[in-house]
Amino acid sequence: MDFKIRAAEKEDCKDISRMIMELAVYEKMSEQVKISHEELERDGFSQNPFFECLVAEVTDEHKSKEGNGIGKGLLSKVAEVGKKKQCVRLQLSVLNWNTPTQDFYAAKGAQDLTASEGWHFIRFDGQNLDNLANEAPKS
Amino acid sequence: MDFKIRAAEKEDCKDISRMIMELAVYEKMSEQVKISHEELERDGFSQNPFFECLVAEVTDEHKSKEGNGIGKGLLSKVAEVGKKKQCVRLQLSVLNWNTPTQDFYAAKGAQDLTASEGWHFIRFDGQNLDNLANEAPKS
Repeated sequence: MDFKIRAAEKEDCKDISRMIMELAVYEKMSEQVKISHEELERDGFSQNPFFECLVAEVTDEHKSKEGNGIGKGLLSKVAEVGKKKQCVRLQLSVLNWNTPTQDFYAAKGAQDLTASEGWHFIRFDGQNLDNLANEAPKS
Repeated sequence: MDFKIRAAEKEDCKDISRMIMELAVYEKMSEQVKISHEELERDGFSQNPFFECLVAEVTDEHKSKEGNGIGKGLLSKVAEVGKKKQCVRLQLSVLNWNTPTQDFYAAKGAQDLTASEGWHFIRFDGQNLDNLANEAPKS
């Protein structure tokens, strides 16, 4: 399979939205996906965008038995883009049962900081985020 | 103790740099701090800044026995700023032995996603980030 990697455009947001849901289904968390393609368009393609995105475009459907290399290509490209912007770290998250992905990151030299240093993810959302915001000191 | 919270300015970067180191010492990770105040100035106060920052400015040094409320004030203000920007989540990280901070977040309604869903932090940096970037497909 041949592919090329390019910067996402606003018109890609429907496909990006579909792939977010496909990943969430694999992660058994599809009920957590709230974002729509309209919100992706607004957040990623207005002034001062919240995110940048790369997409892989398949140019030849010929299948290989040994994986298509798209995941590795995308990850490497994110690292390249980050280095150009003078980033010194690339951080990702992975579920504890997702050993194929953990093994892939480890093979590329990544550290599991939760295992090695004890970092936990903390999240505020929904009503507890609203409550927190409402308690902000007025000044 | 009275304080006010305001947006950080470029002139605050020396103090911010000192407080990053103070936190790292508490977290027993001072050797991991590489960023200088010059880099903070560049990354936070040029066009398209990488981060925004709030600082708490003490206006009256009178001490209270029951904590000064600065941490809670800053966290709430970050939530308020995020809500104004239409953010729906506020995510933080905490070390597994730092139970005072974990208890503080939990009391405010935060979820520990590492404990409840099994999320792990993954990091590429240094030579493995360079290697990854160098493997990026040319296009």
